[in-house]
Parts: sequence; C-alpha cells; structure tokens
Amino acid sequence: MKPTYIEHIGIAVNSIEEAKTYFESVLGLECYSVEEVADQKVKTAFFMIGQTKIELLEATSPESPVAKFIEKRGQGIHHLAFAVENTDEALQNAESKGITLIDKQSRKGAEGLTIGFLHPKSTFGVLTEFCSK
Amino acid sequence: MKPTYIEHIGIAVNSIEEAKTYFESVLGLECYSVEEVADQKVKTAFFMIGQTKIELLEATSPESPVAKFIEKRGQGIHHLAFAVENTDEALQNAESKGITLIDKQSRKGAEGLTIGFLHPKSTFGVLTEFCSK
Repeated sequence: MKPTYIEHIGIAVNSIEEAKTYFESVLGLECYSVEEVADQKVKTAFFMIGQTKIELLEATSPESPVAKFIEKRGQGIHHLAFAVENTDEALQNAESKGITLIDKQSRKGAEGLTIGFLHPKSTFGVLTEFCSK
Repeated sequence: MKPTYIEHIGIAVNSIEEAKTYFESVLGLECYSVEEVADQKVKTAFFMIGQTKIELLEATSPESPVAKFIEKRGQGIHHLAFAVENTDEALQNAESKGITLIDKQSRKGAEGLTIGFLHPKSTFGVLTEFCSK
C-alpha cells in the first residue's frame, strides 16, 4: 500500500498562461501538455521534473473547486498526489485507518490516471490524492 | 539553472508526533530523521518517498514563521523545494528575471543543505526553495 513516489503537485493559479511563463523562463521547465478536465471544471498544464509532475490548475468556471480554493486561500499549492499501485486499495486502506475520504471509489483523472482523494481534515490540511496507471 | 527534481515538500503541522503516525501508519513511510533547526525555530521530521523528502515542520516558538503560517492558513503544505546544482546561481538567475527573493544569498538549512527562498508573491503563492548539496 506504500506509495512509491510523488506523482504530481497540483498548484492553483489564476492564469495558466501567466504561470507558465514563470515555470518555463525562471525554472527552465517545459510544459508538455495542456488538458481540460471537464468534470472538475479546470484547465491543467503539466511540467516534468525528475519523477514528479507539476500540474497547474486554472478554473474554467466560478463553481470549480479550484476557483473556490483561490477565493479562500489565494493562489498556491492545492494538492499532493502519491503514486500507488492500486488506487481503490489505497483508499480502502486509508479509510480502514480512520481517514475521511472524498472519493469512496476511484475515478478517472487527467492523463488517464485512476485517482481518488482523501479529505484534508484528516491529513493535516494536505489535500491528498492517490493515483495509479 | 534548471532544477533536477523535487528535493522536498515542507508541511506545517501542529504536532510532529501526531502527524508522524499518519505518514507512518496510513502511508507506510518511514521517518528517518528528526532535527531541530534553531534559527528557523522549527523541529523537522523527514520521510523519503522516491526522489523526494517530506519534511514535517513544527514550530518551537510562537515567533516561528511556521507558527505564523499555521495561525493564518492552518496546517498544510508550507513550501516546495527544488534541487539545483548551485543555490546562489539559481537565486541570482531568478532575481534577474524579476522574481523577489527572501534570501539574497544562500544559507545553511536542515540536513546540511545550502538553501535559499523565493518570495511567494512572485511565484504564484508557492513559497519556493532552492537547495543544493
């Protein structure tokens, strides 16, 4: 059940266009994909650094969870995603240890991954995602 | 100047003792070091996952930057650290591209690394650290 690496770090931004410039020109990272995730009402942009992706998240609607996050806390790190072998098993294991789940069952996320979220109230304020291929 | 991987993710918590239980028993990670960084007024605990460390941060004084962070935003992800070859060069490069620095020059951080921080106001709300060995 142990996650093997940090799959990605999600960062909520007002504008992917503006943030992209920083990640590209200051950090020298390359954006290899821009994708819309309709059911989450977000546009995403991905950069690779070592084993880990940085996923920029821009709301496509004021009802997007990302829009609400930014309204409340401002731009910044939104969630942390751990690579696991089996997302459903990892969710069940967490629940069996008293962790509150956002997703009782896995679902499809960006990049075709199988994902599921834990609630930050039981993970020390860190919105936590499990994902598997 | 390009960072090569995510060196660590700093997470501000009220109590390392409590948070450790979650990272160990739910995520199955092993805490390999607990260290106090006196000049930052924090106690730290480290876990390794793939290339990346998770660094828990607990304030040892109400004046600690971590205590102020938690007071304002609650527990959660505090900063993101990129491994670079030379921290001073990375800081200078960022400044030359208009980024506001917290550290004009590198300094010593936890685990003997040479570190320096960028100000989150110019990095889309992400308190960003460069570190080198």
